[in-house]
Amino acid sequence: MTEQLGVAVIGYSFMGKAHSNAWRNVNAFFPDTPPVRQQVLVGRDASAVKGAAAQYGWAESATDWTSVVARDDVDIVDICTPGDSHHEIALAALAAGKHVLVEKPLANSVAEAEEMVAAAVAAAARGVRSGIGFNYRRVPALDLARRLIAEGRIGVVRQVRASYLQDWLADAAAPMTWRLRRESAGSGALGDLGSHVVDLVQHLLSEPVVSATGHLRTFVPTRTGPDGPEDVTVDDAAWANLVTASGAVASLEVSRMATGRKNGLALEVYGDRGTIGFDLERLNELQVQDGRGGPTAQVSGSQRIVVTEPDHPWLGAFWPPGHVLGWDHTFIIQAAELLMAIDQGTDPTPSFAEGLVVQRVLAAIERSAAQQGTRVDVVRDKED
Amino acid sequence: MTEQLGVAVIGYSFMGKAHSNAWRNVNAFFPDTPPVRQQVLVGRDASAVKGAAAQYGWAESATDWTSVVARDDVDIVDICTPGDSHHEIALAALAAGKHVLVEKPLANSVAEAEEMVAAAVAAAARGVRSGIGFNYRRVPALDLARRLIAEGRIGVVRQVRASYLQDWLADAAAPMTWRLRRESAGSGALGDLGSHVVDLVQHLLSEPVVSATGHLRTFVPTRTGPDGPEDVTVDDAAWANLVTASGAVASLEVSRMATGRKNGLALEVYGDRGTIGFDLERLNELQVQDGRGGPTAQVSGSQRIVVTEPDHPWLGAFWPPGHVLGWDHTFIIQAAELLMAIDQGTDPTPSFAEGLVVQRVLAAIERSAAQQGTRVDVVRDKED
Amino acid sequence: MTEQLGVAVIGYSFMGKAHSNAWRNVNAFFPDTPPVRQQVLVGRDASAVKGAAAQYGWAESATDWTSVVARDDVDIVDICTPGDSHHEIALAALAAGKHVLVEKPLANSVAEAEEMVAAAVAAAARGVRSGIGFNYRRVPALDLARRLIAEGRIGVVRQVRASYLQDWLADAAAPMTWRLRRESAGSGALGDLGSHVVDLVQHLLSEPVVSATGHLRTFVPTRTGPDGPEDVTVDDAAWANLVTASGAVASLEVSRMATGRKNGLALEVYGDRGTIGFDLERLNELQVQDGRGGPTAQVSGSQRIVVTEPDHPWLGAFWPPGHVLGWDHTFIIQAAELLMAIDQGTDPTPSFAEGLVVQRVLAAIERSAAQQGTRVDVVRDKED
Amino acid sequence: MTEQLGVAVIGYSFMGKAHSNAWRNVNAFFPDTPPVRQQVLVGRDASAVKGAAAQYGWAESATDWTSVVARDDVDIVDICTPGDSHHEIALAALAAGKHVLVEKPLANSVAEAEEMVAAAVAAAARGVRSGIGFNYRRVPALDLARRLIAEGRIGVVRQVRASYLQDWLADAAAPMTWRLRRESAGSGALGDLGSHVVDLVQHLLSEPVVSATGHLRTFVPTRTGPDGPEDVTVDDAAWANLVTASGAVASLEVSRMATGRKNGLALEVYGDRGTIGFDLERLNELQVQDGRGGPTAQVSGSQRIVVTEPDHPWLGAFWPPGHVLGWDHTFIIQAAELLMAIDQGTDPTPSFAEGLVVQRVLAAIERSAAQQGTRVDVVRDKED
Repeated sequence: MTEQLGVAVIGYSFMGKAHSNAWRNVNAFFPDTPPVRQQVLVGRDASAVKGAAAQYGWAESATDWTSVVARDDVDIVDICTPGDSHHEIALAALAAGKHVLVEKPLANSVAEAEEMVAAAVAAAARGVRSGIGFNYRRVPALDLARRLIAEGRIGVVRQVRASYLQDWLADAAAPMTWRLRRESAGSGALGDLGSHVVDLVQHLLSEPVVSATGHLRTFVPTRTGPDGPEDVTVDDAAWANLVTASGAVASLEVSRMATGRKNGLALEVYGDRGTIGFDLERLNELQVQDGRGGPTAQVSGSQRIVVTEPDHPWLGAFWPPGHVLGWDHTFIIQAAELLMAIDQGTDPTPSFAEGLVVQRVLAAIERSAAQQGTRVDVVRDKED
Repeated sequence: MTEQLGVAVIGYSFMGKAHSNAWRNVNAFFPDTPPVRQQVLVGRDASAVKGAAAQYGWAESATDWTSVVARDDVDIVDICTPGDSHHEIALAALAAGKHVLVEKPLANSVAEAEEMVAAAVAAAARGVRSGIGFNYRRVPALDLARRLIAEGRIGVVRQVRASYLQDWLADAAAPMTWRLRRESAGSGALGDLGSHVVDLVQHLLSEPVVSATGHLRTFVPTRTGPDGPEDVTVDDAAWANLVTASGAVASLEVSRMATGRKNGLALEVYGDRGTIGFDLERLNELQVQDGRGGPTAQVSGSQRIVVTEPDHPWLGAFWPPGHVLGWDHTFIIQAAELLMAIDQGTDPTPSFAEGLVVQRVLAAIERSAAQQGTRVDVVRDKED
Repeated sequence: MTEQLGVAVIGYSFMGKAHSNAWRNVNAFFPDTPPVRQQVLVGRDASAVKGAAAQYGWAESATDWTSVVARDDVDIVDICTPGDSHHEIALAALAAGKHVLVEKPLANSVAEAEEMVAAAVAAAARGVRSGIGFNYRRVPALDLARRLIAEGRIGVVRQVRASYLQDWLADAAAPMTWRLRRESAGSGALGDLGSHVVDLVQHLLSEPVVSATGHLRTFVPTRTGPDGPEDVTVDDAAWANLVTASGAVASLEVSRMATGRKNGLALEVYGDRGTIGFDLERLNELQVQDGRGGPTAQVSGSQRIVVTEPDHPWLGAFWPPGHVLGWDHTFIIQAAELLMAIDQGTDPTPSFAEGLVVQRVLAAIERSAAQQGTRVDVVRDKED
Repeated sequence: MTEQLGVAVIGYSFMGKAHSNAWRNVNAFFPDTPPVRQQVLVGRDASAVKGAAAQYGWAESATDWTSVVARDDVDIVDICTPGDSHHEIALAALAAGKHVLVEKPLANSVAEAEEMVAAAVAAAARGVRSGIGFNYRRVPALDLARRLIAEGRIGVVRQVRASYLQDWLADAAAPMTWRLRRESAGSGALGDLGSHVVDLVQHLLSEPVVSATGHLRTFVPTRTGPDGPEDVTVDDAAWANLVTASGAVASLEVSRMATGRKNGLALEVYGDRGTIGFDLERLNELQVQDGRGGPTAQVSGSQRIVVTEPDHPWLGAFWPPGHVLGWDHTFIIQAAELLMAIDQGTDPTPSFAEGLVVQRVLAAIERSAAQQGTRVDVVRDKED
């Protein structure tokens, strides 16, 4: 029997549950991936993490990540904690020779992220793999979109409209949480939602953002915390105007105040020969208009593609046409992609370096916002 | 200056208003049509019809249609009265040598309709033109649909799903009206809505319905009339299964009880190579899937076509792309088509004969409904 | 530690994969269900079933279902084979005291189904549970629909439009399969797709269908099999007009020839006060119009509900709002419901008896189709 | 008989046709408006304007607007020429005591617009009325939206997403036109499309924009003109971030390069208690989510309202529910509103002053764009 790869997941709440689900199912849908063993789930509350480990199918639980990342029976460390601990855990795990998957954002600061990239590059030279969890790259419809754009199906991209709208803070009476404090969360809607959007824009267009303007807003500046009214120190919503290396312009809008939108990540990409549209609330669909209609425009419009055909990305692993996937399947695919990279000795994507690029764009948006929205360049590596 | 064609419209309520609008605007949008003169609007209530005539742009009003159809300054008689007077007016007008447009249904009985067809055929031999007002044939999206089907863009048609759903009777407290009495209305949802559906099915497929099953239902059997509770003697809803000459199967459902549907005429046509969809509530759109996706089905779905391009049917007469038409524009186009036929000396479509074919299908549906839904053949002309 | 329930799944192709996925995940999402052990996957091809068992997470595989159903370490027998073996396996498993889940249809004949119901009733008296796999009852949006209808939110239901359209046979060159032979498949689109539709109509309305008309069609009567052209002996498409106990009318249309529709199960339910709509291709959404708009109809329309809130049926077990479920989650919920019933000592739904009622309706449709569509009564139990 | 108001339209191309249609039909749909007489259509090409006048129903044509605005039989001067002549014609007409309707934009410069406002104010004191043609205020769905927002149905508005996307310049081979030269057109997508968007944002929210950032782009800098390649000197697309007096933030994106979008004016308004959405390609529909779902969110979603009920704005003048309006009906309503204001001696809206406010916002966007997107204040009147 093939040697199993032992997995440790650090963190057991929302993301820990989603990643546990991925590890529990990845071999069943992708039989060519190396077999994994759900070894240990790690959290600070011994009792709670024990219960979660039992529920989600882990062999054991633990409270001390430092010892876990050193264990011989752990080959992959999957970091699902809040952003402020990513740097420390990832560096330790890479140093211990473990493959590492980090939930986005890569870290809470660009400086930390740069160190993590350096560590990942050094580790890769020793055959240790690392990746970041921009799971929406694994939505089959979005991977199809990226392929169609790369093939030139919509021509040269000029404009992108990108938004990620939620409404869980629309009610001013919603209470204070750690996510609304700058010291713990680093950022608000911009970091949480904008990071996905920036990554997808760069991923779909296969090119980096080079300049940005930004505008941030906290609509509800004070919320009720455990000890009474407290200042909200992160943004509720953010807007940006991004220019890519080729000169395409992407408008970005993210919000936690958009009443009625639960998880509305929407993208429209306009090329000189076609258009692509996507909405995460209908994640099995892609809107594609390719070509401008030929000699006449009589039969020219946007196609609604139900992305569930066997030759659509990753769909062969799942169900027959029309039998749709859910949000959590993207994590299964993400795990499969990481496992395949480990198996084949290649560097997984998205990499730490791609996570760093996203954070530099977010930093540029914040810098612009602090300067009345004046356009600023995104910091690039010296060698770029 | 070109001689003007004098028009008389008989009836001044809903349909009279829609037809008046058409005559008032037809030359402005279609400058190649023969010029018309809005001569006289006819109705039984002298005061009301005088007011309507002034409002809708008519030179004069009248109360006696028999004298109007004989006038020298009237060239076209447009019959917008309830169905029970169509037969008498149309025969008189044709006999007087006037071109005739009759609102659907052609008549309240097949026998009357047959006499009208005979009269129309005889009149046509003398250069007198006649047509029936199935205005939905003049929806540009539906004309495009017919053309695409005729060109084989969706292959051989096998199945049609056709429905026309309204909700103005959903409330059991809605009062009795003449439309709910068999003696005045002839039929309920079947005749009023089903006639449009049957005509469109035959028109889109370019072939007749040859057999039918039927089921009728009156959900609210008694309603409050002016003198207290009264029996509803027509159907509230109707269902049919229609087979066409080529063997295609069309399911039909019409209702005045479909809560939430205001004017929902929806059609789905499934061919062996593609599909077409339409909904009257979005009358400027057509859904088209042509072809099954070629070697792979990666980019294969239904296109949403906004039917407002200059090379779409009749659109050159109106506005630039994306500047949508309304329901009433179909009557303007209908008037233009009649005028062009008069001008060119051709027989307009849809003809009285086509109206008769529709009524024979409706009669077959009623016959089947009276026999527990057993399939019956549609009566055909001997020479067919 | 709680005693685990050992599960055996019989069959390892499409449905076997879907059910395996359910057993692998049910405890992780529903921690209050009794713990299960994926004991054995059963199939005729020893090598293939061994591979499938390994892939899908089973402890072992087997080829002889008769010995499996007798094993002490098997508590639940889940039958995912073609319909012609359901009867035999289910009776054996129930006789052996195992809880049984049978994929729909219950059996290939009404007679077999009646025997299975009798066996299930007898077994229930001994505490042995049984259920049938109408998994679409477990779509949260459809369960919400059922609840809203039961609460009277759309008033008295009058009309239902129900269709289940696929296109995998639209191409006449698609080859012959066992699904197109009456002896093996029992029925075509009617049994495969119509059974879901009939069950949902009865489930949503909480009442049985009492009469039916039917029409069947085989559009492509001959297809190429392994030995050359072969007759297709089941229907490609079916239509029915169903009347329920309360007098509501449901139109049914199912097809494997509806080009462009991959898995299009669509339902529209019209009540006298509101309307509900659903499409399986967007399974996380429900369209609801409740009430007719109050004093004015200014703000009255159909709401698009994204059914992913914590208080929506079963959603608390999964992800936050807007994080959508896929088709396969319905099987996880189905497994959970069965386990809860076993745990609580109640009879699961849908029961064998409910499966029998569906088959009697399908039989009535076929009987009507053989009589030119004449309406026939659905056979009922004597005590009904 | 009531005295008729004589109308002169200056300009006979696209807008001249749309306004002619409005004057031809306004009394027929709105019988309470003062009767109008289509007196004279004015254009520079004598032969062309003569033909247009005959086609569109005018009594006569003329080539010299200066004499037309002085005629005794002209009461209303409707200016449909390009923006560079609005100032001169409007001032002359107002000075001659004629009521004036000016197509948007009010003028090609803020300075001209300010003089026009002064003239309009002075004229109003003499009972002379003036208005600007922001016809999209007359879309019934948008008027309903404004009312619902004003009533507080969606609470306090925080965010607006507004875009107006067309694609007639997406093809780089599309030729040079006067619309792409700054000297003749004043502006590109910003002035043409952005003016509508800015007006609607202010109109829907009933408050002014007070600051703006802007970004302009010309994607195709050179196009082929009559004498060879020529520089495009206006923007192809524009983006802005607008802040209103109450602190709401509106993102604006307009483009003539958005492949596949024909006339896509889309608005999303997010309040703290609800949301409103609109798309001009479906101009009879409004998406409304009011309230956050009460005690539970089980039945909470966005309603699709078909805005064709008798109690919807202006709909009583047209057709029964579900019988949809087209783009051109907005001009008929616009004419009716102007006539009612003249009749009642009130000042019509939108006024010249409102047109000036829009132009000041557009000027602010351009100013910001020239300063790397730095936020700038919108110039306000001293008394504001």
